[in-house]
Amino acid sequence: MAGVQVLLGLLCLSSAQAGKLLVVPMDGSHWIGMKPVVQELGKRGHQVVVVIPEVSMTLGSSEHTTTITYPVPYTEEEMYESFKAGMAKIISQNIVTELDKLQNFILLLDIVGEVSVRNCESLLFNKTLMQKLKDWDFDAVLTDPFDPTGAIIAEHFSIPSIFMQVNLACGVDFPATQCPSPASYVPQRYTFYTDQMSLWQRTVNLMRTFLQPMACRHLYTQADEIASRFLRRETSMVEIMSHAALWLMRFDFVFEFPRAVMPNMVMIGGISAAKPKALPTRETSMVEIMSHAALWLMRFDFALEFPRAVMPNMVMIGGISAAKPKALPTDLEEFVNGSGEHGFIVFTLGSMVSELPEVKAKEFFDAFRQIPQRVLWRYTGVVPKDAPKNVKLMKWLPQNDLLAHPKAKAFITHGGTHGLYEGICNGVPMVMIPLFGDQGDNVQRMVARGVAETLNIYDITSEKLLVALRKVIHDKSYKEKMMKLSAIHRDRPIEPLDLAVFWTEFVMRHKGADHLRPAAHDLNWVQYHSLDVIGFLLLILVTVMFVTFKSCMFCFRRCLRKSQKKKNE
Amino acid sequence: MAGVQVLLGLLCLSSAQAGKLLVVPMDGSHWIGMKPVVQELGKRGHQVVVVIPEVSMTLGSSEHTTTITYPVPYTEEEMYESFKAGMAKIISQNIVTELDKLQNFILLLDIVGEVSVRNCESLLFNKTLMQKLKDWDFDAVLTDPFDPTGAIIAEHFSIPSIFMQVNLACGVDFPATQCPSPASYVPQRYTFYTDQMSLWQRTVNLMRTFLQPMACRHLYTQADEIASRFLRRETSMVEIMSHAALWLMRFDFVFEFPRAVMPNMVMIGGISAAKPKALPTRETSMVEIMSHAALWLMRFDFALEFPRAVMPNMVMIGGISAAKPKALPTDLEEFVNGSGEHGFIVFTLGSMVSELPEVKAKEFFDAFRQIPQRVLWRYTGVVPKDAPKNVKLMKWLPQNDLLAHPKAKAFITHGGTHGLYEGICNGVPMVMIPLFGDQGDNVQRMVARGVAETLNIYDITSEKLLVALRKVIHDKSYKEKMMKLSAIHRDRPIEPLDLAVFWTEFVMRHKGADHLRPAAHDLNWVQYHSLDVIGFLLLILVTVMFVTFKSCMFCFRRCLRKSQKKKNE
Repeated sequence: MAGVQVLLGLLCLSSAQAGKLLVVPMDGSHWIGMKPVVQELGKRGHQVVVVIPEVSMTLGSSEHTTTITYPVPYTEEEMYESFKAGMAKIISQNIVTELDKLQNFILLLDIVGEVSVRNCESLLFNKTLMQKLKDWDFDAVLTDPFDPTGAIIAEHFSIPSIFMQVNLACGVDFPATQCPSPASYVPQRYTFYTDQMSLWQRTVNLMRTFLQPMACRHLYTQADEIASRFLRRETSMVEIMSHAALWLMRFDFVFEFPRAVMPNMVMIGGISAAKPKALPTRETSMVEIMSHAALWLMRFDFALEFPRAVMPNMVMIGGISAAKPKALPTDLEEFVNGSGEHGFIVFTLGSMVSELPEVKAKEFFDAFRQIPQRVLWRYTGVVPKDAPKNVKLMKWLPQNDLLAHPKAKAFITHGGTHGLYEGICNGVPMVMIPLFGDQGDNVQRMVARGVAETLNIYDITSEKLLVALRKVIHDKSYKEKMMKLSAIHRDRPIEPLDLAVFWTEFVMRHKGADHLRPAAHDLNWVQYHSLDVIGFLLLILVTVMFVTFKSCMFCFRRCLRKSQKKKNE
Repeated sequence: MAGVQVLLGLLCLSSAQAGKLLVVPMDGSHWIGMKPVVQELGKRGHQVVVVIPEVSMTLGSSEHTTTITYPVPYTEEEMYESFKAGMAKIISQNIVTELDKLQNFILLLDIVGEVSVRNCESLLFNKTLMQKLKDWDFDAVLTDPFDPTGAIIAEHFSIPSIFMQVNLACGVDFPATQCPSPASYVPQRYTFYTDQMSLWQRTVNLMRTFLQPMACRHLYTQADEIASRFLRRETSMVEIMSHAALWLMRFDFVFEFPRAVMPNMVMIGGISAAKPKALPTRETSMVEIMSHAALWLMRFDFALEFPRAVMPNMVMIGGISAAKPKALPTDLEEFVNGSGEHGFIVFTLGSMVSELPEVKAKEFFDAFRQIPQRVLWRYTGVVPKDAPKNVKLMKWLPQNDLLAHPKAKAFITHGGTHGLYEGICNGVPMVMIPLFGDQGDNVQRMVARGVAETLNIYDITSEKLLVALRKVIHDKSYKEKMMKLSAIHRDRPIEPLDLAVFWTEFVMRHKGADHLRPAAHDLNWVQYHSLDVIGFLLLILVTVMFVTFKSCMFCFRRCLRKSQKKKNE
């Protein structure tokens, strides 16, 4: 493991260096990853303006920033209703065959497409607000390409855009960056394949690759129409996105399968699990560890503190506001410590899903009744009367802090990227129950690395859950492999949050990142695949063959004529 | 420009964290890039063993390391003679047509191939030394793939290898890492193309891409044979190199054309020009600058210094030993200051070439006589009696320090990567005279960015030189574009030296970097390009067509027969 975890100490800027950044975030869990970056940028002295809809699930004001809201033509109830309807559709599907996957994929595209344009028109055609944003004269736009609004605004104002990538339904980040993705070892999203595919899987994958442009067209049908109408020219989201200066990829190869990346992609996977210091070895005391610390990473910022002398082994890293595990509240601490040597299990299905159909929930309660571990479950659904004592139900739970606890034995999760990196970071094996979106693929990656078991929500039973839980808790290999992944993931020269902040500032300072833009963007499909070149070579070959053939025929005929003449003579 | 240039403060390791690293470097200018990394690793407490031949041009002992030499079957004189003969062959070529380029490329492959195996056998079959190295039980091998010895040793000992890439003659770094390189916008090395190619250029480039495996076989003919003999199995250098854990790429996209890269490539371009602080604005005084410094980057290391308190705006970056511009010696300072407002020109053709044929040298002297700038020229050849007064000839000159001087107006260079990054870093426009190897391509990249003019050594005249020099000095666009490149290049979250050190340690700590290895390595050519899949799809198509056709024919015949029967009746 990294002995010395060294960090960037980001410092405050003078007013001359401070820039103006427009942020157009996406609702839901996406905001969790973007918020620390936005706050850090504001803290560093930039003028950060976050534009959000009046009605949303998780969006709201953040520290050190200016938040502007705009009206939308729906109520909070309507929003939640439509969300619940979409979730219900997805959870009720049983995905077994390739055709199921394809149907599920198209359903997802439809649902995502609808959500993504929900606010787009409301903001773009709000003339007063748009004029206000224009007057601000921003240096760059930081946005989530899941919601096309930010990208369209950047295009309209002609300012550089930075996209914080979340696994987009049609995988638009790869065509939009011209990143080569050989179908032979790069699985398309929502195929749930690994990087080792059989001939049949590679066939499906290749066909999915060919279908990708169609999937993007399908996903962005409405967005393409709005963008064309607003920008007053025929355009598409794929084209607009291809102008992005930079992509902040929520990607770490400890988890993603190795593949080619483009120079304007910055890997910031694990940003929400980012921790400023190496984790203590699990079974030790803090006092002992502190007594032989080589280095003190001080969460200290002289923007707040009065300047004073410090010792050489103190490294200033104040401003790393991203989730660092905090001590648990007393009642939780008591509950998890009461689990003794058996430890406890953390169970959440993400920020969006806190209920389950009663019959499904029963399977979980039945399974938990049969294990010695205690369980912390984020659950707000119907509770049976005979709910077991070892289960604590909560409306919300401090996921990262719990996973960082030495007694955490397993993590039951839907496989969202935030929880996933928190699990990796803290080295906790998982039982994964993917629900929708990129979760199926995320789960595949963890299972392929031997650190998780997966279950299907459609046909889950208490027996299956018990088998999976016992496996990840008692089979040492899960924990060992997870600790190795954790060590690799945490061993990095610079924290993902700092990297995201640095590169966002870079784009603001240099008004884009043109030097990272590959020439591939200027080629058409035929040129990119060298088909014109191959045609040209074939033409030469055919010409040469034709000329040779004709010459031979000519000589042959002459010889024939001569010999016939001779005969005749 | 980067307001706050923040750096990694690398600290010394405890003995438990220290590892053992074997270094097998390459002679010549290659060692310049590797030496600071090796010294920094030694300084950080690792046991670093550098194995070098008894006879070499630039190799020698380095600080904080153990150096071991081995005997080789040639003398210093023989080595220099063969080097000079190769250089003479290359300089005497006039490269105009594509065929010239191809011939020059093959000549280069021959010369490089010979140099690269010069020491290979001497070390590999030195049983005593090899046993000694084996007993050391190294954690990793850091080597320059230009010399195949290190790679073969890593393979033999089964320890992870780290390759410090230098533009290899056959471009082996891309096939060996399975990095996709579409011929449509990624120019092959030694084509001297940019990323914007005409149909004809793309045709040549595609054919070069197809020829690449052959070029590598040609280059490594001897090395392949030695490796197969030594490892006692049929193998090739391309295969051995494909096992590398990590490639430290001397690559910066400020200079290279944007293209896909693989996750196990770490960009460390500019390592020799690395500077720990932002350059002062050119026309100011040091005292004034210091008076309002926001931050002091202290070249200070508590490995040497006694621990003491420091102030909050002091950042410890001791151990950044790479070229930081030093004050010039008094005589040089006087000479360059005497140039007045016209400034001076730095002229070197690299560490290997300090002489020129008399007739060529005359052209340079004639040109320099006609300009108001002073010239500093690394030249040890014949000096004409009427050598102009504004030219100072030197055996060696402090290139980086001179380029960092505010009066430096232009840099005449052969286009080697070290000088090139020093020029970019200090923002000095260039007149480039490529001699051999990657220099032709390097020059193309600078010319394409509008920061340099290029001349051909074969037909250089004083007039051409004058035109080029006046252009880069008086046309403001060269300087402006160069300053922009410089700002982008120096604006990075972590210094290349620190990055190189971090990743080398990473491989030592985790015994490789398996999680960065793409699955493409396990596929054959047919699978990688999905040709088996396409064949499979075609087979299905043909079968369907065949069955359809047969069915139709069958129906058709039946109908026909029926109607005929009817007719007959």
